[in-house]
Amino acid sequence: MSKERVRQNVVLAEPVLRRNEDLAAALRARYDAGGTTTLNFLSSPGSGKTTLISDTLRRLQGKLRCAVIVGDLATDNDARRMQGNGAPVYQIQTGDICHLDARMVDDALGEIGSDPVDLLIIENVGNLVCPAAYSLGEHERVALLSVTEGEDKPAKYPTLFKTAGIVLVTKIDMAEAAGFDDAAALDTIRSVAPQARILSVSARTGEGMDDWIDLLIELAQRRVCEDVD
Amino acid sequence: MSKERVRQNVVLAEPVLRRNEDLAAALRARYDAGGTTTLNFLSSPGSGKTTLISDTLRRLQGKLRCAVIVGDLATDNDARRMQGNGAPVYQIQTGDICHLDARMVDDALGEIGSDPVDLLIIENVGNLVCPAAYSLGEHERVALLSVTEGEDKPAKYPTLFKTAGIVLVTKIDMAEAAGFDDAAALDTIRSVAPQARILSVSARTGEGMDDWIDLLIELAQRRVCEDVD
Repeated sequence: MSKERVRQNVVLAEPVLRRNEDLAAALRARYDAGGTTTLNFLSSPGSGKTTLISDTLRRLQGKLRCAVIVGDLATDNDARRMQGNGAPVYQIQTGDICHLDARMVDDALGEIGSDPVDLLIIENVGNLVCPAAYSLGEHERVALLSVTEGEDKPAKYPTLFKTAGIVLVTKIDMAEAAGFDDAAALDTIRSVAPQARILSVSARTGEGMDDWIDLLIELAQRRVCEDVD
Repeated sequence: MSKERVRQNVVLAEPVLRRNEDLAAALRARYDAGGTTTLNFLSSPGSGKTTLISDTLRRLQGKLRCAVIVGDLATDNDARRMQGNGAPVYQIQTGDICHLDARMVDDALGEIGSDPVDLLIIENVGNLVCPAAYSLGEHERVALLSVTEGEDKPAKYPTLFKTAGIVLVTKIDMAEAAGFDDAAALDTIRSVAPQARILSVSARTGEGMDDWIDLLIELAQRRVCEDVD
């Protein structure tokens, strides 16, 4: 049953995905030419992307020049929540579309302006499935898994986690209240996404945030060095 | 920007959606002929669908004859978690497909068998966007919002909540730990989904579960009465 449906959907989606890949490659070249490290944040709705990014921007002030593009079906709630941290924030409203694509990001870059950016953070639509199929030309995907979602999510949504360079376990201040099994979650992440660096953080208490900020600075500096080489 | 993309995606999806509507209408006729009330459960990944349904099945034993169809991209974790509660459970693995559709449910019904069913529970793929576009012929949609997801989710994912007959606020035992603003959440739900009945539940502590079970029995009995009329 599902095989037939998979084929049908792939046929429909192929031209769209191919066009997206072409534009994503052009975006990647543009990021590299500007010395910009670009991260694509993906997760379920409500796993803490916006809170984490707000706190990240605050901590990176004076260290990296950041910009944010955030996608939601409706509202500009997230952009408003992230403002005031020294970085331009551009909200994309996708209507009924379940993911960001390279065209939307290309248009948003035109709105953000031409000031140099060391770190471009793209907060995708909250969705563990569809955004995984659309490259935005990013250097790394950051997949979030909050402790309230259950330890088996990476196994149930493998496509996304398999493509993540970084997995962040979020809201760890709530681990006890959620009955979160840390060891089981790490086992699942490692089995599905052996390529990923794994960090555990709480934007609310600050736990793990220093390591996360160090990693971002390292990623941004490595890109600058690669460009110099 | 987004308008152009919306048009493009709608053109692609239209034949698929039209075929789905036709098959969903046939499913609805089949449910009605069998006296089966069918509910389609939709939410983010990790909002507590499987735990809630497991506890619901346990509480409905001897009161309603239930069956469950559950969709995930991968694994049969959810079906295994729901077994042993006196109801047949059929797991659909969708591969990379981000939603259940009427064809998948039609096929699953053939696997479940022909014993009479008063209440068919369909647990959709965890996704607040795409499943909303695909009718499964259900009588009601049940949208879950867990207290850990944030109060503004119905405003950010309006399409799904606008089509829900019932909204369940779940995991209310964790409301304090999550800093959940109950009044703000209810305001948002009521403004986006004024048509919906709203219940707050915790499958873990049992709070609100009696009202939820009463509602399910009422829905199932109303269908039997409508058939008799």
